[in-house]
Amino acid sequence: MTDLGDVLARLPHEIVVTDPELIASYIRDESRFTEHAPPGAVVAPRSTAEVAATLSLTHEVGVPVVTRGAGSGLSGGANGLAGCLLLTTKRLNRILEVDPVERILVTQPGVVTADVRATAAGAGLMYPPDPGSVAMSTIGGNVATNAGGMCCVKYGVTGDYVLGLEVVLADGRILRTGRRTMKGVAGYDLTHLFVGSEGTLGVITEATLRLVPAPRDPHTVLATFGDLTAAGRAIDGISTSRVTPSVFELLDETTIRAVEDRSPLGFDLTVGAVLLLQSDSLNAAADAAELSEICSRSGALEVAVSEDRDEARALLEARRLALPALERLGDWLLDDVCVPRSRIVELLRGIERTAAEERLTIGVFGHAGDGNMHPTIIFDAADHASSAAAHRAFDAITATALRLGGTVTGEHGIGRLKTKWLERELGPVGLDAHQTVKEAFDPRWLLNPGVVLARRGPRRSP
Amino acid sequence: MTDLGDVLARLPHEIVVTDPELIASYIRDESRFTEHAPPGAVVAPRSTAEVAATLSLTHEVGVPVVTRGAGSGLSGGANGLAGCLLLTTKRLNRILEVDPVERILVTQPGVVTADVRATAAGAGLMYPPDPGSVAMSTIGGNVATNAGGMCCVKYGVTGDYVLGLEVVLADGRILRTGRRTMKGVAGYDLTHLFVGSEGTLGVITEATLRLVPAPRDPHTVLATFGDLTAAGRAIDGISTSRVTPSVFELLDETTIRAVEDRSPLGFDLTVGAVLLLQSDSLNAAADAAELSEICSRSGALEVAVSEDRDEARALLEARRLALPALERLGDWLLDDVCVPRSRIVELLRGIERTAAEERLTIGVFGHAGDGNMHPTIIFDAADHASSAAAHRAFDAITATALRLGGTVTGEHGIGRLKTKWLERELGPVGLDAHQTVKEAFDPRWLLNPGVVLARRGPRRSP
Repeated sequence: MTDLGDVLARLPHEIVVTDPELIASYIRDESRFTEHAPPGAVVAPRSTAEVAATLSLTHEVGVPVVTRGAGSGLSGGANGLAGCLLLTTKRLNRILEVDPVERILVTQPGVVTADVRATAAGAGLMYPPDPGSVAMSTIGGNVATNAGGMCCVKYGVTGDYVLGLEVVLADGRILRTGRRTMKGVAGYDLTHLFVGSEGTLGVITEATLRLVPAPRDPHTVLATFGDLTAAGRAIDGISTSRVTPSVFELLDETTIRAVEDRSPLGFDLTVGAVLLLQSDSLNAAADAAELSEICSRSGALEVAVSEDRDEARALLEARRLALPALERLGDWLLDDVCVPRSRIVELLRGIERTAAEERLTIGVFGHAGDGNMHPTIIFDAADHASSAAAHRAFDAITATALRLGGTVTGEHGIGRLKTKWLERELGPVGLDAHQTVKEAFDPRWLLNPGVVLARRGPRRSP
Repeated sequence: MTDLGDVLARLPHEIVVTDPELIASYIRDESRFTEHAPPGAVVAPRSTAEVAATLSLTHEVGVPVVTRGAGSGLSGGANGLAGCLLLTTKRLNRILEVDPVERILVTQPGVVTADVRATAAGAGLMYPPDPGSVAMSTIGGNVATNAGGMCCVKYGVTGDYVLGLEVVLADGRILRTGRRTMKGVAGYDLTHLFVGSEGTLGVITEATLRLVPAPRDPHTVLATFGDLTAAGRAIDGISTSRVTPSVFELLDETTIRAVEDRSPLGFDLTVGAVLLLQSDSLNAAADAAELSEICSRSGALEVAVSEDRDEARALLEARRLALPALERLGDWLLDDVCVPRSRIVELLRGIERTAAEERLTIGVFGHAGDGNMHPTIIFDAADHASSAAAHRAFDAITATALRLGGTVTGEHGIGRLKTKWLERELGPVGLDAHQTVKEAFDPRWLLNPGVVLARRGPRRSP
């Protein structure tokens, strides 16, 4: 019997997935050009105890484990690996508690994020994080990747709402981190060490989330600009104003054309950039007026303000269509970089130069308020030269972000896509610190091996 | 030559502190009943490079290192240890950068927190965290303890404003964590592993802090209640309202009497509890009206609303006087526990029972909006029975907080005061995870040994 077969034989047969089609569907997430393979086997545990039993066995026998939520990731963090046991959280799908006085929600990892948000809304509260995949991604995947979204400019990222976790460690022991209280400094912040660790340090089996009061309906501002320079002036003006927008998004010319081509929304196709802004504050009307004024003063071609809820949803939908619209132009390679927000225009100019040099179409959209941009490279995967150009462009864009004082990933994570880039961003001491943490929690490197970090040789004694 | 003498001889003589009085003054922080001793020697490095040189030597030779900011801590985290090298950050006292567009401030650790706040204010921005010690504590100490304060109910704690750190590791290597951008998920969140680690994982030599727009002048509400039950109704009512107060403080009867006794502010001495509330939102006037209405509806005896800036400062000062006023009553032992905010009244009732049982005066004040309370036990240190009663009361209060779903420290940290309580809160798996992290970063247990965690024996192989 193989090692993996040994593990499977000792687990409850009800949790072992046998449907070959289903197993094959777990070969990779939504990323492109990331290493992947059909998993050796798939288990779908129904409880923390079954996750613990699984990891206890894989640790004993030495089988690698890949944890998968909805598989909506864009960096390969949930890709299958030959011979691995893939653990899907899909049956850990219950919201365990909502407490409107303490404003906390306790959930299992396999719940779809939109359902977490809907449950919070049902209690008159809000769970803010809204990654683009909110309708399909799971809260466990969101926590494991510290997912972002459009809300971040005002509300922060997933990790800002995680008070505590239950995690099954590599050897099957069950760890509880954090707390249910608003504050607490008892010991190290292990909670946020697991947040964003992409399944490499443990398997998250429960999360205690912080909720906030539901905001008012937002007021929305849509501003079009003739060129990036004018949009950049508006970004700086808004960033230094007293208004905190709840949405602060940018779409470039290529993206606008692609969106308009897919779903005509009446955009003037000669515009060079669009800013989409919202305020959901108590003074949303005054905020919208100020945002609008800043855009006009910065040289906007047109500025439209709306306080209509349905119109606001339609405008946000246009933004959510950016990636699907760009996907229609060909094969795509999506980047995710974050720069200081005053450097966004430099980043976009650099991307324009890269696109020209490589003769590629690159659409850019993203979270201007955070400096977090998603350059989307369009190419022809069947054409070797085009593929090579796309990879060069991807590297050039990531390098540009680092040069501008940015980071190689704003919200999609390292996964299998950017391990080399992480090494470059961290430098040797940072990389060593990461490997040390990995080895402390997973000495056999069995949890999602190859994701975030490459394994190093045996550690020198101190 | 001793090991410590060897280290000192190899360091630049300008950084070695020789004044015996100064060295003696570093014997402990502001805590009571925590182990302390005069340090073996004191160094005051002037640069990150000098910190690195120091730790490189202490690591090589095997000398324990205690890092000290202003020494205002309340848990013994900066206490001297016999034979240790105490490293003071007082000469690392420059603010390196303020960027009003990116809204970041980069500072060395020895800068007083009030100066960080003043510098931010000079740029039209705010650095929110305001621990009680804000006028004397250093930003490095605040980061190392993840300090809180009155702002937390709206603005969060120190860690929520730390984007990145420079840390000298136990062996003298210089690690940079985090980023300068608003978002970023490149690798593990080592930044927040060092935040709150109380000098046990490395020495923080630089912090990149996030700033926010300066708020409006607040509106203040002061409400008095005949008993805790009525105050508890108001706490629940405010916690479930749409108002987010920027200050949400509670003072109990004992504390009110002590404050009034020290600095007469005109409080009715028959009241059982006072709530002090502020809103600095754009709708502060409406918020104050709503807070006031909730207090009245909950049975407040009197409710006063003020929009005057000086009056607001005077009222906050009354709250800041709580500890100094209680200190006048005798020797004191200050606790710091945090419970779900709906359990505050139960916590206070439990403290009342403990005070009656032990025949002690215990004043309670703190951050009602977070559930973070500071029971202050008054006793006679010269009387053995009274001291013993104070210790029993301290343990009983901490146990009550845990039983109510709380944590043993909301903001003061574990230090040397609560290591046993941390073990109880963490449980065996949590404690093991903490020790594993400690050993990963400080394999020789040389950084602030005995703080947060007790050393364990050699680790079993996995």
